[in-house]
Amino acid sequence: MADPRFHRRAGPYSLGVIAERIGARLSDGANPDQAVADVAPLQSAGPDDLSFLDNVAYVEAFAASRAGVCIVAAGHAARAPAGMALLISERPYRAYALAAQAFYPKAPPEPGIAPSATVDPSATLGPGCRVEPGAVIGPRAVLGARNLIGPNAVLGAGAVLGDDCTIGACASLSHCLVGSRVLIYPGVRIGQDGFGFAPDPSGHVKVPQLGRVVIHDDVEIGANSTVDRGSGPDTVIGAGSFIDNLVQIGHNVVLGRGCVIVAQVGISGSTKLGDFVVLGGQAGIVGHVTIGAGAKLAAQSGVIRDVPAGQAYGGYPAMPIREWHRQTAILSKLSKKSR
Amino acid sequence: MADPRFHRRAGPYSLGVIAERIGARLSDGANPDQAVADVAPLQSAGPDDLSFLDNVAYVEAFAASRAGVCIVAAGHAARAPAGMALLISERPYRAYALAAQAFYPKAPPEPGIAPSATVDPSATLGPGCRVEPGAVIGPRAVLGARNLIGPNAVLGAGAVLGDDCTIGACASLSHCLVGSRVLIYPGVRIGQDGFGFAPDPSGHVKVPQLGRVVIHDDVEIGANSTVDRGSGPDTVIGAGSFIDNLVQIGHNVVLGRGCVIVAQVGISGSTKLGDFVVLGGQAGIVGHVTIGAGAKLAAQSGVIRDVPAGQAYGGYPAMPIREWHRQTAILSKLSKKSR
Amino acid sequence: MADPRFHRRAGPYSLGVIAERIGARLSDGANPDQAVADVAPLQSAGPDDLSFLDNVAYVEAFAASRAGVCIVAAGHAARAPAGMALLISERPYRAYALAAQAFYPKAPPEPGIAPSATVDPSATLGPGCRVEPGAVIGPRAVLGARNLIGPNAVLGAGAVLGDDCTIGACASLSHCLVGSRVLIYPGVRIGQDGFGFAPDPSGHVKVPQLGRVVIHDDVEIGANSTVDRGSGPDTVIGAGSFIDNLVQIGHNVVLGRGCVIVAQVGISGSTKLGDFVVLGGQAGIVGHVTIGAGAKLAAQSGVIRDVPAGQAYGGYPAMPIREWHRQTAILSKLSKKSR
Repeated sequence: MADPRFHRRAGPYSLGVIAERIGARLSDGANPDQAVADVAPLQSAGPDDLSFLDNVAYVEAFAASRAGVCIVAAGHAARAPAGMALLISERPYRAYALAAQAFYPKAPPEPGIAPSATVDPSATLGPGCRVEPGAVIGPRAVLGARNLIGPNAVLGAGAVLGDDCTIGACASLSHCLVGSRVLIYPGVRIGQDGFGFAPDPSGHVKVPQLGRVVIHDDVEIGANSTVDRGSGPDTVIGAGSFIDNLVQIGHNVVLGRGCVIVAQVGISGSTKLGDFVVLGGQAGIVGHVTIGAGAKLAAQSGVIRDVPAGQAYGGYPAMPIREWHRQTAILSKLSKKSR
Repeated sequence: MADPRFHRRAGPYSLGVIAERIGARLSDGANPDQAVADVAPLQSAGPDDLSFLDNVAYVEAFAASRAGVCIVAAGHAARAPAGMALLISERPYRAYALAAQAFYPKAPPEPGIAPSATVDPSATLGPGCRVEPGAVIGPRAVLGARNLIGPNAVLGAGAVLGDDCTIGACASLSHCLVGSRVLIYPGVRIGQDGFGFAPDPSGHVKVPQLGRVVIHDDVEIGANSTVDRGSGPDTVIGAGSFIDNLVQIGHNVVLGRGCVIVAQVGISGSTKLGDFVVLGGQAGIVGHVTIGAGAKLAAQSGVIRDVPAGQAYGGYPAMPIREWHRQTAILSKLSKKSR
Repeated sequence: MADPRFHRRAGPYSLGVIAERIGARLSDGANPDQAVADVAPLQSAGPDDLSFLDNVAYVEAFAASRAGVCIVAAGHAARAPAGMALLISERPYRAYALAAQAFYPKAPPEPGIAPSATVDPSATLGPGCRVEPGAVIGPRAVLGARNLIGPNAVLGAGAVLGDDCTIGACASLSHCLVGSRVLIYPGVRIGQDGFGFAPDPSGHVKVPQLGRVVIHDDVEIGANSTVDRGSGPDTVIGAGSFIDNLVQIGHNVVLGRGCVIVAQVGISGSTKLGDFVVLGGQAGIVGHVTIGAGAKLAAQSGVIRDVPAGQAYGGYPAMPIREWHRQTAILSKLSKKSR
């Protein structure tokens, strides 16, 4: 079980309640009144625990598991050990995620403003907000309901948050309009000047950055990532996009809905991503290009031109991923010949 | 126009005043008393707005623009739509930057020390400084005039700032001498120990880092970037250098004047950059090499040897950029043959 | 000498005391009572200073140095200038590190809790702790003796620190068990949610991250690096590992003892490193692989498969480093032919 020092568990729940909550079907003979106490990995789960099988690499672990209940796809049900109740789902990992959320629910914050927080008198906070010690909320900021502002976090003048957002410790936001259920991790920087200037041997001339950052609902932005505000247009993060740690998003960048940006990616100014684009870790994209909806970029790839929708690209300069694999293979073959 | 929630506009200005301020020449027939209210992109500008043409890709947008005034190079003036006043400049983007600064000026901070800030009694602050809530200024720090210390920023013991610097929210500086008009973005880390130790299987032995960080005038350092102090010599950032977000500068690194370091670059210890070096995003440079003045490195390049002054390099290991392009082309050609 | 504005020097020490402290042997004729006042590089050291020769590139500088004392390997002793006392060591850099630590010792913090710090009444602090202005210590946190919590740093609910740790300015830690003598640099993020979710076109479903971060003794984690907590298992940093700035460590990653991780490296979820692995700057490792003990990865390499113990790898996809050099050479040769 999760360390109770850090994680508070709910439940137990009956199997029937879980099945309904996660949209799964009980296997034949399973007892909907069976009590389930916790979630656990296949290897360590016991009779009171719920586990899941999502990756074929773990079928043997599944067949040997002592878990009382397991979420599986129908095709793997036959491998279940005797006595294990099954929850049949087409998407076992998603179903597990929902079950784990039930056992370890995110509670709304306990409302209140810490004495050492600084809330400008002209800021407005909706009901149920919590402002932790040392947090600073600037003039004219507007917060909806049940926002949690972490310790030593900073909201700049005029910043807007919807409802149910969490701003992590030591994060700072300015010049931004943020939707609801947005999760900003510790140390994130949002809304600072973009990297805009006219180069000049007698001293680069800074171009005022006159836009904003607009973050839609259900976005997550990982620890110490940076999102610059637009230079005139806005920088936009589409609804439901998940951004990992240490990612750089330049000014005027637009992300569509549901994008997945893995750690240490860099996206240069004015580049546009369609919906559900996936960028592997440490990939880099030059400015002013377009990545079509559903495109996927391999880790460390370097994109210098548009990428069509739905395509997988890799390498530097980024190319269709099969072509990249072919080039890698050719070089390896030439090397072997030359020995 | 820029969102007044976040940006405060000055003006209007007459065309003549702007022309003088940005060093441009009025086109024939333009009225120096014409009022200009704002800056705007070519596509959205109206009769009261000033726009600019800098990139030939936008000549058509220029020809179709409704902007009342536009900054252009002399060679494009003939394409202006009827009725548009022109400001003729050899460097339109630079001229636009100056105009935008006039409309959206950076005001000196309103002086004062927030009640929740902590300023050590032995620190000295020049006239006109502003210390925002939660900021911490350590013992013996010395600040010149009109510095703005952002919310929850930290200046360590003995830190020195010149005049008119801005330290962003949640940034931390120590062991540093900083010039004037320096802009440190939120979350920047300056002056911590460099990565110096004697490797040892029985426990790596830390080498005390006895230098400082010296930052000259007019430098910008982007959000969440890190600049380690020297190990004995100093780490030095030359005047007018612009550093983007999430950049790593190792101990003893020396940057010349006017360098441009794009996001997520890493520069290892004791490497020296001449004046006006440009490093593309995610480029990496090994320690103890020299990059000559005016050299340019492509994004994601990996430098393991000296780069001569004035050269453009790319790839890994970094090579003259034409050679890199040639190698890329050869590999692509071999791949096509092999299909 | 180091700038006394930032560095406080101890000593002078006699040569004999230093020799004993650093485990070196005095050269014939050297006077153990000779006073040594400071450490300095070969080029700038004077008669009262101690310097060292570790890199053959500096033998000429050694032969010309005015240093009163120098640490050298026996093999270079003959090149010493007349009158220089020598400290003979098999590991001169390590010996220098110990000497420099003697001249610039790290003092235990002056105990006390700043008035502007917030320490939850349910937290417990061992003797000799110092909590700087604006720091926040959450409920049920447990700190051992002589910990230094920097300005505006944040320790989350239940966090555990051993003895003699330093937490840098503006760092934040949660869901973590930290050993003794651990040095967390400014802006580090430890213990936040890992990047775990079930992708879903109707909205990615977050998977609760139920593990912790476990950091063993004598670890250093550099500025603005991020270490996510485990998803169920823990994320573990082995004893004596040194991590540079802006490094990303994903959930469930396990580092062995004494690993060296250079700046801007990214390690994806569930990857395991053996003891004394060395990762060059900006290297990236995919999830769920194993890097054997003592393996070394070149800067910017991209690892997508297991790396055997003791091997040096480079390139992308990472391969044995000789093979990578061979491929690099072949491509260069083909390019020359094609001109």
